[in-house]
Amino acid sequence: MPEPKKIIIDTDPGIDDAMAIFLALRSPEITVVGLTTIYGNVYTTLATRNALHLLEVAGRTDIPVAEGSHVSYMKATKLRVADFVHGVDGLGNQNFPQPKSKPIEKSAAEYLVEQANLYPGEITVVALGPLTNIALAIQLDPTFTKKIGQIVLLGGAFAVNGNVNPASEANIFGDPEAADIVFTSGADVVAVGINVTHQVIMKDSELDNMAESEGKFAKYLSKILDYYFSYHRDAYSMKGVYLHDPTALLAAVNPSLMTYTEGVVRVQTTGITRGLTLFFNKQKRFNEATEWNNKPTVKVAVTVDAPAVVKLVMDRLMNS
Amino acid sequence: MPEPKKIIIDTDPGIDDAMAIFLALRSPEITVVGLTTIYGNVYTTLATRNALHLLEVAGRTDIPVAEGSHVSYMKATKLRVADFVHGVDGLGNQNFPQPKSKPIEKSAAEYLVEQANLYPGEITVVALGPLTNIALAIQLDPTFTKKIGQIVLLGGAFAVNGNVNPASEANIFGDPEAADIVFTSGADVVAVGINVTHQVIMKDSELDNMAESEGKFAKYLSKILDYYFSYHRDAYSMKGVYLHDPTALLAAVNPSLMTYTEGVVRVQTTGITRGLTLFFNKQKRFNEATEWNNKPTVKVAVTVDAPAVVKLVMDRLMNS
Repeated sequence: MPEPKKIIIDTDPGIDDAMAIFLALRSPEITVVGLTTIYGNVYTTLATRNALHLLEVAGRTDIPVAEGSHVSYMKATKLRVADFVHGVDGLGNQNFPQPKSKPIEKSAAEYLVEQANLYPGEITVVALGPLTNIALAIQLDPTFTKKIGQIVLLGGAFAVNGNVNPASEANIFGDPEAADIVFTSGADVVAVGINVTHQVIMKDSELDNMAESEGKFAKYLSKILDYYFSYHRDAYSMKGVYLHDPTALLAAVNPSLMTYTEGVVRVQTTGITRGLTLFFNKQKRFNEATEWNNKPTVKVAVTVDAPAVVKLVMDRLMNS
Repeated sequence: MPEPKKIIIDTDPGIDDAMAIFLALRSPEITVVGLTTIYGNVYTTLATRNALHLLEVAGRTDIPVAEGSHVSYMKATKLRVADFVHGVDGLGNQNFPQPKSKPIEKSAAEYLVEQANLYPGEITVVALGPLTNIALAIQLDPTFTKKIGQIVLLGGAFAVNGNVNPASEANIFGDPEAADIVFTSGADVVAVGINVTHQVIMKDSELDNMAESEGKFAKYLSKILDYYFSYHRDAYSMKGVYLHDPTALLAAVNPSLMTYTEGVVRVQTTGITRGLTLFFNKQKRFNEATEWNNKPTVKVAVTVDAPAVVKLVMDRLMNS
């Protein structure tokens, strides 16, 4: 067995974030070094509370939680929060008790820089929310892009409609400026967009199986998932839910579950398509210089073995 | 035989415009009522000269030419002109003589409105350049959208990279504000984008056949096409050329050569993705109102019977 890969999960829990965090804790291929929090599904304060709560549920309060930015990279305070997807508490309106544990003193960006310096080239950040913390880490230490091993991010809608509006996916829409910084930073970035995660669906019947499971995580998740299923029924007329965050997490655990293409990604930051991710594979020579010229490339997930991803998620979460 | 469909071609000739115009004159399903001119492949003055020249070559100086706008809908005078694709004269640098005929006194927009009023519901505009004239016709007479039969336009890059830059296709990039007006006007619009026309390729061997043909149009076109082939070799590393304009023309002649989807198209007008066309099929209910809400739908070509299109183009143009 190779040494487990060191992972920091940047997260805005969030029902599917809870799934991804538990899945990470059940994945022997990786070690969860820490969690950093960000707004998105909820505001950052609540994201921190939920991250601490989820680690208490898991009995893993040894894992540090660093609180992330409360505002966007450009210091916007009017943020889009998807409580209509995850419940006002972010965890299916279950009214969970206040966690006893506390976040560490360092900010998310400071913690990310610290860990990248401590283990150069060894840390994979799995970013499940808007990319504010990662962009702030780059701002804090421009060498972060070289010291971080890899950034696997859930974000973007590549050649498909978005989920916030027809142009934009929620995590990128949450902080387009930060996303453009991360995509063009030169770091080793793997983007898993909704063009891929919309293929990975947990069905009603699988929720039933989960509810009947004796597994600790399965019991917990089957309760909070009701709200998430109900959102998907309303918004997409579907009987099932998209496994966004678990899929992105598994791209870090086992990259071979997906295939990838490589090219330059830029993020539109103004107008009606603000938050749009536009991929260019450099296959055409344009007459004029473009905003995609001379930028570092990233990897973008193209296909996914969806049945294998769903099976892995279910097996690991239902395991007692 | 049903009565031929009345067509006005809005054009910026342009090598593939010349092909489309000749193809139209050889298509018994349609009658070319008039040509209107616009900047794009060349400036509008030269587009008018070339339109008159092409009708002289065809012996069809009975067809009126109305000169279109010299500036964009927002009155921009710094226009992008694709002379590197079509030659400085727009027709493969062949140094053709000045035409003897003249454009009519009316502007393109005035002519379009006049004809739509004269034959309500009967005129199809085939728009092969930036959509300035069409937007100006709508501005001149808001009922134009109801009186015009259909607008078949070559424009957009739907879920693929553009050809001006990774975001934008040339005709939409030429006047994004006009394009957004046309797409959301409520007129019966059919858009044929480069996602479709990039499937329709005339090969080197077909150029050879054309050069050997006795057909008048084939002889003429085989000369001017050299420049167009050479651009495609440089920009796309391909041995062949995209038949953009002829394909769009055939969408009007025989719609069943393509399949279509229906939805709302908006055009981004600012930032790095200026000119991007974003299609939304209304299959998701978004939580917030979006810029795609409550807008009229258009049809967008999705697939094309490329061999049938190429065959039809070649057969009709090589016919003496």
